[in-house]
Amino acid sequence: MSEQPASAPVIVPAPTTSPLPHTVAAALKRDGAGLVAAVVQQFDTHEVLMLGWMDDEALHRTMTSGRVTFYSRSRQEYWRKGDTSGHVQWVKSVALDCDGDALLIRVDQVGAACHTGTRTCFDGRDLDVQTGEAL
Amino acid sequence: MSEQPASAPVIVPAPTTSPLPHTVAAALKRDGAGLVAAVVQQFDTHEVLMLGWMDDEALHRTMTSGRVTFYSRSRQEYWRKGDTSGHVQWVKSVALDCDGDALLIRVDQVGAACHTGTRTCFDGRDLDVQTGEAL
Repeated sequence: MSEQPASAPVIVPAPTTSPLPHTVAAALKRDGAGLVAAVVQQFDTHEVLMLGWMDDEALHRTMTSGRVTFYSRSRQEYWRKGDTSGHVQWVKSVALDCDGDALLIRVDQVGAACHTGTRTCFDGRDLDVQTGEAL
Repeated sequence: MSEQPASAPVIVPAPTTSPLPHTVAAALKRDGAGLVAAVVQQFDTHEVLMLGWMDDEALHRTMTSGRVTFYSRSRQEYWRKGDTSGHVQWVKSVALDCDGDALLIRVDQVGAACHTGTRTCFDGRDLDVQTGEAL
């Protein structure tokens, strides 16, 4: 992210058993729970659909299976998106950001991304803010 | 996020001194460091520019000033995007997701979002993955 020192410390070291390619495992900057944020975007319309969390195993499954798998912080288990809802996310691409703490997963989303039934988890959830613009 | 129980526990309670409107502070689901993820998207092209982190104070500043302010996990301080680089983010809208752990900040980005000089923090950083598609 901008203006961040390139030497920002890794918060959690790579697990010794990571299933990821070494270069990917070494680049990840995990939070205290061993997770990175995964932004999910519809590949053609560019809608931001949702944000989930991945550990090394969830990212490995996402990179190798064609389907998105997250790690649920609340349930402390893996969940492959769509297995219960049918609202599958087909993987189109995966990118890791400059400082290793965020993934951008481009997908083809089947149906609603949100468990509430809205297309994205942000639809209709705008906060009241002061906007800004260049003078 | 999809398939998550609505009763997922709040990880960190709202600080007693939150400057946010009560309904917003009560809806945030903070991580162990008191932060939520903030996805930043260019409002017109819909590019995902970067991901940053916000605590209650950073979100308050973002909601009320027209400019995006993050909390730096590595430097443990607030940084208002563009103050040193000139690459200001003008706030267009802010939405909080269905389970309160992610923000979508739509902005007008001046120049490069990434400190490496690329337009987004994900440009040119694709991982080698197996893609998927409906049969």
